[in-house]
Amino acid sequence: MNRSYVHGYDTLESGRLEDQARTLEDLLHHDTRYPPESRVLEAGCGTGAQTAILARRSPGARITAVDIASDSLAAARKRLAAIDRADVPFLQADCGCLPFADHDFDHVFICFVLEHLVAPEGVLRELKRVLKPGGSLTVIEGDHGSFYCHPETRAARRVVRCLIDLQAACGGDALIGRRLYPLLQRAGFDDVRVAPRVVYADPSRPAWEEGFSRNTFIAMVSGVEKAAIDGGLIDPDAWRQGIADLEATIGQGTFHYTFFKAVARGPRK
Amino acid sequence: MNRSYVHGYDTLESGRLEDQARTLEDLLHHDTRYPPESRVLEAGCGTGAQTAILARRSPGARITAVDIASDSLAAARKRLAAIDRADVPFLQADCGCLPFADHDFDHVFICFVLEHLVAPEGVLRELKRVLKPGGSLTVIEGDHGSFYCHPETRAARRVVRCLIDLQAACGGDALIGRRLYPLLQRAGFDDVRVAPRVVYADPSRPAWEEGFSRNTFIAMVSGVEKAAIDGGLIDPDAWRQGIADLEATIGQGTFHYTFFKAVARGPRK
Repeated sequence: MNRSYVHGYDTLESGRLEDQARTLEDLLHHDTRYPPESRVLEAGCGTGAQTAILARRSPGARITAVDIASDSLAAARKRLAAIDRADVPFLQADCGCLPFADHDFDHVFICFVLEHLVAPEGVLRELKRVLKPGGSLTVIEGDHGSFYCHPETRAARRVVRCLIDLQAACGGDALIGRRLYPLLQRAGFDDVRVAPRVVYADPSRPAWEEGFSRNTFIAMVSGVEKAAIDGGLIDPDAWRQGIADLEATIGQGTFHYTFFKAVARGPRK
Repeated sequence: MNRSYVHGYDTLESGRLEDQARTLEDLLHHDTRYPPESRVLEAGCGTGAQTAILARRSPGARITAVDIASDSLAAARKRLAAIDRADVPFLQADCGCLPFADHDFDHVFICFVLEHLVAPEGVLRELKRVLKPGGSLTVIEGDHGSFYCHPETRAARRVVRCLIDLQAACGGDALIGRRLYPLLQRAGFDDVRVAPRVVYADPSRPAWEEGFSRNTFIAMVSGVEKAAIDGGLIDPDAWRQGIADLEATIGQGTFHYTFFKAVARGPRK
């Protein structure tokens, strides 16, 4: 797995992802619940932000989580222990080459992972291999190209573009949300259903302005400042202006972003 | 009212608007219902596509519709007569200067109108004048800047940009959806609540691919071909390529557009 430096593994990032998980939990997870005793794989669990949500929402499910990065796994184990779910096993593994038998899981869940991959279709085929026929695959991804705001300036669009370009330079695709449908079709899943999950913030929705606009999206863009400037994509003044313009929408303008959630079935043979 | 040539009044346009009204009716109108005997004003009714929906969904409400264009009003009267609602009065009037007393209406409805106006805030203030204190204003608008698709080409984005630029050249704002919140706030309404209404089409949703992607959105973009080419915004080859690229998403890719619906209250004095 080629995870880029765009979303990192450091402590600040981990805090950001936790904020994001809380704010977005209802929007993204309200319709994901796994039955007691069902075997669930979370592929690419990172520091366990989504694992904790899954474990809380599906307390009887037997969840296994894998990630390629040992430091992420350590953080994830700690996070789950803190909510008394030390029973969730975390395994170090590449999502493209999983240490599980064919059809081992009733359900597979993967969230904010495919965007980082050079070959997302290959990983999806591997997830299909370990999924029971008729079992469910759930994929959640963002799409940074779905972002817009008001007032919207050229400088604001430019800093967001830096994030997209940096992810592309690492072989990822920050615009993957819009192509989940064809991707899952091509990977051979059945009954592919994709639905947009829209974030809309304006001053009548301060929890979204703070929780998403400021603490999730602007924080994520801000996280690539050094990479964007050092990489020659933008100069420091233009960067500061773009971030300031994004922040200026809060409390007076509007902020728009779309996530995509796909649910598909493992092929019945 | 400065209505541009971007959306016209000819027969083809009228057919397109009817298709759009049907496809989008549930998405946009499912939560608009006026009580029997309430006085409802539709401002800028055009050829009556929305008026017919209001009349059907709120059969007991006393609807009055106004538009500045007499030929549109003639088409609207005909449309309502065809569904046995010839009782709906249609008046020729400028939405910025309405022939009604202060606080004359319990509810005001305006749909796909503000985008065409040079001074939408002034019209909103006039609507506020004729609305009872605490009465509801409902506004529905699109936002062409919310459009994206997959696969997305430069040529596809360019033809959509032509539509936006032509509307701007006429003094309108094809990106008005995103600024409904600040606009209604500034016009002095209370309890402003805006919600995105998202269109997402992929091959699993053929009704949306045909009803929206092809027959609404691509048809609307296609409607400005002559204006865009004659105006020197684009050459014929680039135009054809852009439209072909938009059409190529149907049946294999994805198509994304967001409408905005705002509901606000007339100020209680």
